[in-house]
Amino acid sequence: MIKASIIGATGYTGVELVRLLSCHPQAELAMLTTRSYEGEHIEDLFPSLKGKVEIACSPQDTARVLKESDVVFVALPHGHSVPVVQEAVKQGKKVVDLGADFRFRKAATYEEWYQVKHEAPKLAANAVYGLPELYREQIKNASVVANPGCYPTGSILALAPALRAGLIESNTIIIDAKSGVSGAGRKASLVTHFGEANENVNPYGVASHRHTPEIEQELTALAGEEFTISFTPHLMPMTRGILATCYATLKDEISEEKLRQVYEEFYQGESFVHLLQPGQWPHTKWVYGSNRCLINLTADRRTGRLVVCSAIDNLVKGAAGQAVQNMNLLFGLPETSGLDFNAIYP
Amino acid sequence: MIKASIIGATGYTGVELVRLLSCHPQAELAMLTTRSYEGEHIEDLFPSLKGKVEIACSPQDTARVLKESDVVFVALPHGHSVPVVQEAVKQGKKVVDLGADFRFRKAATYEEWYQVKHEAPKLAANAVYGLPELYREQIKNASVVANPGCYPTGSILALAPALRAGLIESNTIIIDAKSGVSGAGRKASLVTHFGEANENVNPYGVASHRHTPEIEQELTALAGEEFTISFTPHLMPMTRGILATCYATLKDEISEEKLRQVYEEFYQGESFVHLLQPGQWPHTKWVYGSNRCLINLTADRRTGRLVVCSAIDNLVKGAAGQAVQNMNLLFGLPETSGLDFNAIYP
Amino acid sequence: MIKASIIGATGYTGVELVRLLSCHPQAELAMLTTRSYEGEHIEDLFPSLKGKVEIACSPQDTARVLKESDVVFVALPHGHSVPVVQEAVKQGKKVVDLGADFRFRKAATYEEWYQVKHEAPKLAANAVYGLPELYREQIKNASVVANPGCYPTGSILALAPALRAGLIESNTIIIDAKSGVSGAGRKASLVTHFGEANENVNPYGVASHRHTPEIEQELTALAGEEFTISFTPHLMPMTRGILATCYATLKDEISEEKLRQVYEEFYQGESFVHLLQPGQWPHTKWVYGSNRCLINLTADRRTGRLVVCSAIDNLVKGAAGQAVQNMNLLFGLPETSGLDFNAIYP
Amino acid sequence: MIKASIIGATGYTGVELVRLLSCHPQAELAMLTTRSYEGEHIEDLFPSLKGKVEIACSPQDTARVLKESDVVFVALPHGHSVPVVQEAVKQGKKVVDLGADFRFRKAATYEEWYQVKHEAPKLAANAVYGLPELYREQIKNASVVANPGCYPTGSILALAPALRAGLIESNTIIIDAKSGVSGAGRKASLVTHFGEANENVNPYGVASHRHTPEIEQELTALAGEEFTISFTPHLMPMTRGILATCYATLKDEISEEKLRQVYEEFYQGESFVHLLQPGQWPHTKWVYGSNRCLINLTADRRTGRLVVCSAIDNLVKGAAGQAVQNMNLLFGLPETSGLDFNAIYP
Repeated sequence: MIKASIIGATGYTGVELVRLLSCHPQAELAMLTTRSYEGEHIEDLFPSLKGKVEIACSPQDTARVLKESDVVFVALPHGHSVPVVQEAVKQGKKVVDLGADFRFRKAATYEEWYQVKHEAPKLAANAVYGLPELYREQIKNASVVANPGCYPTGSILALAPALRAGLIESNTIIIDAKSGVSGAGRKASLVTHFGEANENVNPYGVASHRHTPEIEQELTALAGEEFTISFTPHLMPMTRGILATCYATLKDEISEEKLRQVYEEFYQGESFVHLLQPGQWPHTKWVYGSNRCLINLTADRRTGRLVVCSAIDNLVKGAAGQAVQNMNLLFGLPETSGLDFNAIYP
Repeated sequence: MIKASIIGATGYTGVELVRLLSCHPQAELAMLTTRSYEGEHIEDLFPSLKGKVEIACSPQDTARVLKESDVVFVALPHGHSVPVVQEAVKQGKKVVDLGADFRFRKAATYEEWYQVKHEAPKLAANAVYGLPELYREQIKNASVVANPGCYPTGSILALAPALRAGLIESNTIIIDAKSGVSGAGRKASLVTHFGEANENVNPYGVASHRHTPEIEQELTALAGEEFTISFTPHLMPMTRGILATCYATLKDEISEEKLRQVYEEFYQGESFVHLLQPGQWPHTKWVYGSNRCLINLTADRRTGRLVVCSAIDNLVKGAAGQAVQNMNLLFGLPETSGLDFNAIYP
Repeated sequence: MIKASIIGATGYTGVELVRLLSCHPQAELAMLTTRSYEGEHIEDLFPSLKGKVEIACSPQDTARVLKESDVVFVALPHGHSVPVVQEAVKQGKKVVDLGADFRFRKAATYEEWYQVKHEAPKLAANAVYGLPELYREQIKNASVVANPGCYPTGSILALAPALRAGLIESNTIIIDAKSGVSGAGRKASLVTHFGEANENVNPYGVASHRHTPEIEQELTALAGEEFTISFTPHLMPMTRGILATCYATLKDEISEEKLRQVYEEFYQGESFVHLLQPGQWPHTKWVYGSNRCLINLTADRRTGRLVVCSAIDNLVKGAAGQAVQNMNLLFGLPETSGLDFNAIYP
Repeated sequence: MIKASIIGATGYTGVELVRLLSCHPQAELAMLTTRSYEGEHIEDLFPSLKGKVEIACSPQDTARVLKESDVVFVALPHGHSVPVVQEAVKQGKKVVDLGADFRFRKAATYEEWYQVKHEAPKLAANAVYGLPELYREQIKNASVVANPGCYPTGSILALAPALRAGLIESNTIIIDAKSGVSGAGRKASLVTHFGEANENVNPYGVASHRHTPEIEQELTALAGEEFTISFTPHLMPMTRGILATCYATLKDEISEEKLRQVYEEFYQGESFVHLLQPGQWPHTKWVYGSNRCLINLTADRRTGRLVVCSAIDNLVKGAAGQAVQNMNLLFGLPETSGLDFNAIYP
């Protein structure tokens, strides 16, 4: 059994890792650290785990956590992962970082958008971007996996096949994304207040959201040419789920059938990414609680644009589930291990 | 007092008209027709009206309705308004049609997108498109007002100032719209089933929604050149509200401040359309139940695009409220008469 | 015009008062005080008021507020009203207190349940409990009106007719109440976090909620004998609305028809309280945003119990609407003035 | 592997069975029958199963289904199970019926409340009521298991320990239950329309719901004396979950500590039923998607009443999960097989 620990176990991402890892057939939870609930039993804090996870929360003692673990998941706010990751690498332990600190190939991009100096740019340059559908082989041999952001996961999976196939006109990409409120984390604030978020839709971070450069980095890598995108996130009155609606001008006229073929081939053999039937547009509810990404597309003759939509659960494929998928790759397990369950419907 | 009747009073749009007109200081409800609930009291069908509207529903006897009314609101599915409107015009009564039948200047466009032959193209050509912020003077003298669709209302108001000012590159407009479930009407269906719509977001009618040509007609008129747009509606897990997120490439670099000025001037003196403070993006909750449209925008230097968002209540400014606003214009009343209330918050 | 000020204008109750008073035909808003947003314009803080209420928030300077006002609404947490009310009484100004400080005839009850010493027990003993359907005449001549709590309003209105008619067996009353999240106020907390409150129902304050003695005080007064009740509030995944489901053993067998007659007579002529048709159980949605209370009941022969349910909007009839109703009584206005609008449906 | 078929696989209960059984380590899905979607692939109908369940739906050919199966789950509306169950028994196949037809010991009770003649009263008398926490041993040897209703499951589990211990005064039990909309099934109707159910709470079936006699039957069996109860179900604006708030007068004064001990002992060793920490009242969200039942209670000294609350997921412990738990017992598997996962939180 792989001994897995979670640093920052009591945020929404951390607790989702507990949910998944406590049911994983080849992993067992070692330590759960937290700043706020030291000593308390996780199942008393989160009765959704009642009778299943009998672990008391620990303070964040990195040395001890690493000693007790084969792999460490870091679910801390950006800017806090570096010391943990450095120590893990030194001790030869695997680490999956769910924050932004190790996602960027160029530290300068990180520093520009996050407005903070990167303390370990070299380490970051060697980390692998943990999107298994693009970087599977590299992840297998990585020591540090930078788990992608939730919006980037859905957006990149939606556009990757078309970009790799060279079908998209440069700088025509617009991503209009819609996320459930859990994406804003567990911290109480007016933004996440039920009275404000219920029966409401609103854009935020327009033309300035930090996931923009992360998406651009990967789209650029896929296309082999520089891409600048428009990205607009929106807050939806629901708990989980991200829908990414992506628009891009097609270089040449191409039939929808041909486009579907490009996508089918790209995702051939993937366990978690599926193209839906023609005309069947993704619903976020269809991936609720699961690690799947559902995609559909159309080639709009009137405008010459590709419209492609993807749905993921922001806390699973967009965070904790993808992290477990990465752990599976790191340890040579079947990629679906511990993740082979259906979405909750209705 | 203006005697107002509603044909099709028991759908969501019809009942919203009842809500508004029953509190209008210069109007009184004459007849409410329905196919399903003949003879029943509207306040027993809709206890939200309890103690306030004591009218029994009538069958749809057009002649009698017209006789009893100064103005008739038609809230029927598309394809059913023509005979009522013809008769109203013959009798010299004012009519506000909330369906699509009279919205198109070219019957051919209607026929292509709605897949039905238009029975009164000449009458339609003379109808006025009932968006008061654009056609105020024409509405005042109209006999038939074609009340705009809900998506077009929000989308056109968001883009009108920039188009009229000639700032937008042709054929670069993308409108990504999000609507509450009430937009799908009161008829029970799997689409509107709570188990399907709750905790869910999904696109529909991608590149094929019937509001597309209606928006294109008006954007084209504003810009003075042909516009083809991408329009994607989405269903949100909420009852009311439409957010339209609009993207368009700017012809020339222009500062956000300058753009705001263009919008401020365009909507100067409007009672129902407001530009929010810089950085304050519209929430649909802020217009819940009201006739207002809230707008904000940014000029994104990285991409050269204008991003502009508008929020309306689909049943008020997007349907019944705008219809009452049109009635006010038709009868020379203050435009805010019966509509001068705040949104319900939270 | 009555000059009305609100002390504590930026909580959910305060802002609801702004919504209502800004549309009241015989009142005008004078001052809005707040601790958190001094100097900011209320319509920028709450764009639901955009274009309608152009007032900047003031600090809480009681003397100045009273000088500028004919009536003051106090929407502060319990324990903070006394100095304001004392000063208002001294200056001969009317005051409607929306907190708990003046609701109890016996200061000891207040002190026991709220665990705080009452600083003005004599003043409290002279305040009138502001439930117009029970205390209309006293309110008209009051100087201090203690606006009822939200749960008590719905619960007392549901049970009053049966108690006054002497139909209920002592100590058999159970009230199971369900409230929307806005009842918990605007302060961000884990309880009101969308991620916690959405798709969730939970009881709280079981057998210990502070509205229990307030309900008991009024039921006891109605029945003329001491009543101890079981009261359980629940949090619902919705913004507004309270449903109170009340159970009570009937002293004697009585037909449902007879019971309905008792209720019809009791509420005869009331503008805001309505008995629904037989079998039509109240929906909170039917009172959303309105000052109405909808009631229905059954006499269950199998168990000998009366089951009676009431629905109110917790922020309107349960708080701000009732406060305006009380203001109307205090100033000799029609009771429905500024409150004569329909609920928002759907 | 146990071959399991589902008759009525495309309602919410049927699809939930598919979700669970497709991940069960000792079972495999054989046939899925449906009236509406014959020939269609279940994963196209329900993309929540995408890539996991590649079965085409069959017509309801009972003989063939039984031939291909070791166990049959019947998820049909009441009144439709009898012929299937009769045939299954004849062929010696196990059957779990999720409808009401086999839940009643006395056919007369069924006939009175369901207003339909029972076609197989003798078979019904021999069926075992499938609540494993009460009838574990009988279920193991049963051939027909009558899976309990959703409301009865939560209500009985909440009250069983107190009744078996003889603590409850006869005829003082009131159960106020709150259910998510999925309990009303997948059929489109005005009741389940998002526009009606969202932002709404309402009681229904007051003093007349068909789960009443089912609960009474089991409470009576537990207490050893006849119990008549008040039962009021309510519809909540959420998809899944039932909260049952139960009130009962205690025969003698008993400390909360002692009561907790009674409950702890009763559910000692149970995998799916847990008493929460003192003061921690159940949230339905904490059981979302899981087979658990969470309980808490208080002994209210002021009123002499026990207040006990339970939370279940109506589609899991209240239907499909409990059915799988029963299958596990029928086939000698560990009771948690295929059910040992956590609730989805948040």
